[in-house]
Amino acid sequence: MKVLIVGSIALDSIETPAGKVAEVLGGAATYSSVAASFFAPVQLVGVVGEDFPKRHEKIFRPRKIDTLGLERLPGKTFRWAGKYFSDLNQRETLLTELNVFDRFSPVLPESYRGTNYIFLANIHPALQLKVLDQVKSPKLIVADTMNLWIATALEDLNKLIARIDILMLNDEEARMLTGEYSLAKAGKKLLGRGLLAAVIKRGEHGATVFHKQGVFFAPAYPLEDVKDPTGAGDSFAGGFVGYLARSGKKTFSEIKRAAIYGSVLASFTVQEFSLKRLLSIKPVDIEKRFREFKKLVSF
Amino acid sequence: MKVLIVGSIALDSIETPAGKVAEVLGGAATYSSVAASFFAPVQLVGVVGEDFPKRHEKIFRPRKIDTLGLERLPGKTFRWAGKYFSDLNQRETLLTELNVFDRFSPVLPESYRGTNYIFLANIHPALQLKVLDQVKSPKLIVADTMNLWIATALEDLNKLIARIDILMLNDEEARMLTGEYSLAKAGKKLLGRGLLAAVIKRGEHGATVFHKQGVFFAPAYPLEDVKDPTGAGDSFAGGFVGYLARSGKKTFSEIKRAAIYGSVLASFTVQEFSLKRLLSIKPVDIEKRFREFKKLVSF
Repeated sequence: MKVLIVGSIALDSIETPAGKVAEVLGGAATYSSVAASFFAPVQLVGVVGEDFPKRHEKIFRPRKIDTLGLERLPGKTFRWAGKYFSDLNQRETLLTELNVFDRFSPVLPESYRGTNYIFLANIHPALQLKVLDQVKSPKLIVADTMNLWIATALEDLNKLIARIDILMLNDEEARMLTGEYSLAKAGKKLLGRGLLAAVIKRGEHGATVFHKQGVFFAPAYPLEDVKDPTGAGDSFAGGFVGYLARSGKKTFSEIKRAAIYGSVLASFTVQEFSLKRLLSIKPVDIEKRFREFKKLVSF
Repeated sequence: MKVLIVGSIALDSIETPAGKVAEVLGGAATYSSVAASFFAPVQLVGVVGEDFPKRHEKIFRPRKIDTLGLERLPGKTFRWAGKYFSDLNQRETLLTELNVFDRFSPVLPESYRGTNYIFLANIHPALQLKVLDQVKSPKLIVADTMNLWIATALEDLNKLIARIDILMLNDEEARMLTGEYSLAKAGKKLLGRGLLAAVIKRGEHGATVFHKQGVFFAPAYPLEDVKDPTGAGDSFAGGFVGYLARSGKKTFSEIKRAAIYGSVLASFTVQEFSLKRLLSIKPVDIEKRFREFKKLVSF
């Protein structure tokens, strides 16, 4: 089964205790598409400027990532710059230049509209809703969001939540959205809104899946060297949705496995800057690390 | 097998978002002894003042906690007061009155000296070493420590680490002691000092066990209501050591199960102030929650 992924494509400049890179490939749709492509063909929707390097575009096609929905607009590509501190859990945004992304208004190519698995990466919920208006037969809709939209576009976000199956957000956002400090309570409240599942991402502490059949905890892999946390959450989401598209089932048991595959993909992403590690792994590496996750929590 | 436990016994005054209590039973040796007593008979070593309420002492005996090593000295019992903030991960110490604890110098009754399983709760490492000088045939020595001793008694702490099997400490302390930010690196460095295992406690994020055969992650139970985090780490330690004493084995596989039992005991402790919940549970409750932990991470 194919996965439709809509979101940002960016040129990132990043500084972490492990080093510094300038204008490398980034963006939520980029990370999640590459991660998902290990499991299922991807249909990408995003926008780049005239300056988007051809070499970046070249990474998509050999990976079964359809770029028919990748729009190239006059102007510059979205740029983001950030600096991570020693604990790697906190970052400071140094620059956000929306550029062509400011005019992003996703229009799905005809060949995308019948796709059943949909991942709406973090963009304005009104745009996420606009995508949903264009799909014909969704089987599973997963959406990510952020604090900015909870604060400034709550009405649209609430409409979105009513139309999706699985919401992904981080711990602080879950607290902000539900008004509950306890993540167990926050997860329960989110489920109460009719979601099939709520996935609360907790960075280096893993992710918790709330489902009416129970709670599942996916740990983070204990890496000795984390070079760049950028894209970890998006890689998690891509691996998660990609696995479910390949599986074709959306039982709690498959959602659990999807969360582990998501964690596997995220664990590779943070080992190098940008998508360097993610682009170098093979399916066998994914399966090996999946088994290591199993060992990490089996007793 | 019996467990020898040495540490503090206190009267705590605690404020959390869930309420406020004054002069309730507390102390690392108290929490860890009660937790361990679900698995094995305990021999307690600690000190209290003349004002220590008889009703508190009464909780030990029916639980197979031997109080022959519980000294009563002239003066007042150790008092601690603290306030937790809304995230429950941070606390402010409002008062530390050592009182008789300042003169604590553990002397083991003759009947304690042949005990094989030893838990040295967090006290000055010189006192922990003094306990080890008195035991005749230790099979497993587990010790807890804190930032204060890393900062002020590192030489004694290093001597202690060379003589124990398992070191327990929290994430910040592991970073401080090893100089490594990455917990995976910190754990590896600790193992490099000859420990059988290092257990890094991460509060609401669970605990990670480092062992030469691998890394194991014990999650924290996703509780909807946490009333008082005091004693969580000590209950974890007590459940951990108690289980290993009952098992009689110290394989990686048993250490993993011990970490889960530790997490189970900690999860009960935080559900009420002081030892209220811990004193109300039965072995069947522990087994039930152990199975819930299994479900929480099984995929």
